Amino acid sequence: MTVPGRITVIGLGLMGGSLARALAGAGRVAGWSPEAGEREALGEVGVHAPASLREALEGADGVVLATPLAAVRDLLSMVLEVAPEAWVTDVASLQLPPLRWARAAGMEERYATSHPMTGGEASGFAASRADLYRDAPVWVSSTPGCDPEVRTAVGGLWTGLGARPRDVDAERHDRRMACVSHLPQVVATHLAALLADRDVGPTELGPGGRDTTRLAGSDPRMWRDILALAGPAASEDLRDLARRLESEADRLARGDASTFAEVLDRTRTWRRT
Amino acid sequence: MTVPGRITVIGLGLMGGSLARALAGAGRVAGWSPEAGEREALGEVGVHAPASLREALEGADGVVLATPLAAVRDLLSMVLEVAPEAWVTDVASLQLPPLRWARAAGMEERYATSHPMTGGEASGFAASRADLYRDAPVWVSSTPGCDPEVRTAVGGLWTGLGARPRDVDAERHDRRMACVSHLPQVVATHLAALLADRDVGPTELGPGGRDTTRLAGSDPRMWRDILALAGPAASEDLRDLARRLESEADRLARGDASTFAEVLDRTRTWRRT
Repeated sequence: MTVPGRITVIGLGLMGGSLARALAGAGRVAGWSPEAGEREALGEVGVHAPASLREALEGADGVVLATPLAAVRDLLSMVLEVAPEAWVTDVASLQLPPLRWARAAGMEERYATSHPMTGGEASGFAASRADLYRDAPVWVSSTPGCDPEVRTAVGGLWTGLGARPRDVDAERHDRRMACVSHLPQVVATHLAALLADRDVGPTELGPGGRDTTRLAGSDPRMWRDILALAGPAASEDLRDLARRLESEADRLARGDASTFAEVLDRTRTWRRT
Repeated sequence: MTVPGRITVIGLGLMGGSLARALAGAGRVAGWSPEAGEREALGEVGVHAPASLREALEGADGVVLATPLAAVRDLLSMVLEVAPEAWVTDVASLQLPPLRWARAAGMEERYATSHPMTGGEASGFAASRADLYRDAPVWVSSTPGCDPEVRTAVGGLWTGLGARPRDVDAERHDRRMACVSHLPQVVATHLAALLADRDVGPTELGPGGRDTTRLAGSDPRMWRDILALAGPAASEDLRDLARRLESEADRLARGDASTFAEVLDRTRTWRRT
């Protein structure tokens, strides 16, 4: 598999670092991070990693912004200035905000946003790996003003890495992520916080408890950015869940476990679909 | 590694099936399940699997009750009658109830209860595997009336299978499990139920959402038995968590994501301990 053109990846954490590693085997790539250590580490795996952001962007045919959401917004003017012909995408978890910012920056025509459904709770270049995107679904959306060739290029980036891009409506996507992604993140985190408050260490957990709290190791900065924008939409589902748990607490307190068994019977079937 | 004597495993689901498979390589074993299909499957992997419970128990030096909790209670009189000299343990998740039942049945002297911190959401013999107990911590407790040789035998069963038995106080163990084990189970299940109500399928989830809802595929009968006994103790932590989630919903609704980022920063550190 190959990815045509020269791609610049901005941000070398789990997502960007993995992308740069994968592209190193599939095409031409440059990478940049504000952290010198991450640039050095990328250089050590044989990828061009200049010290300046400007230099990394020069001559790019495509740019992937693999940063937290707020940085996507902040980087657009620099991308516009240094690589005015390049197509641009990001790998943030929300799609409406990047599309809105791209339009405001006058880049609508060459911007398509991507949300790869892969990752992990570990962050930073040290956690990155070349096969992170293999077989991963990637939600891609753009505005009607987007150049069809740009959509093709962004789709080609993902198929070239063995991922499975799918077109999606950005508004529906972002609404969906409230329960698909944001709710599990918030729940896992508060469950872990409660365990920590009870002096339960993570090594004391069985495999189930470990999995249920895995997301509690995620990157706080990334989630602050996402929830600053998506929090209001996620709050309704979260309140619904809180009430279900409160009702369950009432039932369990009076020794009624059969309602819980019925819910579990239903979710067991759901898991198998 | 070897396990001395002839062991009978009652119940051939994930826990019992895995135990019988592992014992087949480490000692003499017989297994029994009320389901003919599970007995046949065990026979096919070369383990003695008679059709009658009584026959399976005859001549046993040790008995492992690998059944849901309520069945542990119901089986004691039969074990006492057919294998009056055998040591007995179980692999249920709670320890005070089996110890109480053993004392009531007059078996205190030869009963030690075990809780292996391993498993999985899949259930039944089909999900069992010989290495399930390898390196798993196993909490073991007994009453002061227990014969020291019985405690040694039960510990030897686990070390013989490569697991790591540790003595524990049953009361402290059961209190601890409310947040270590029962809380993640209840939370994962209600999160999954909410996703199901929103028509989110499990394949739509990313790796984080999948892990957070993995326990929602667990065995309802097992959990009905556990929570019928342990529900009141778990309800307090559950109510606490529900309130934390409700407060988070309030903050997110008004666009405050920084408090969540602080909680996540703390749990990320906790995960690394």
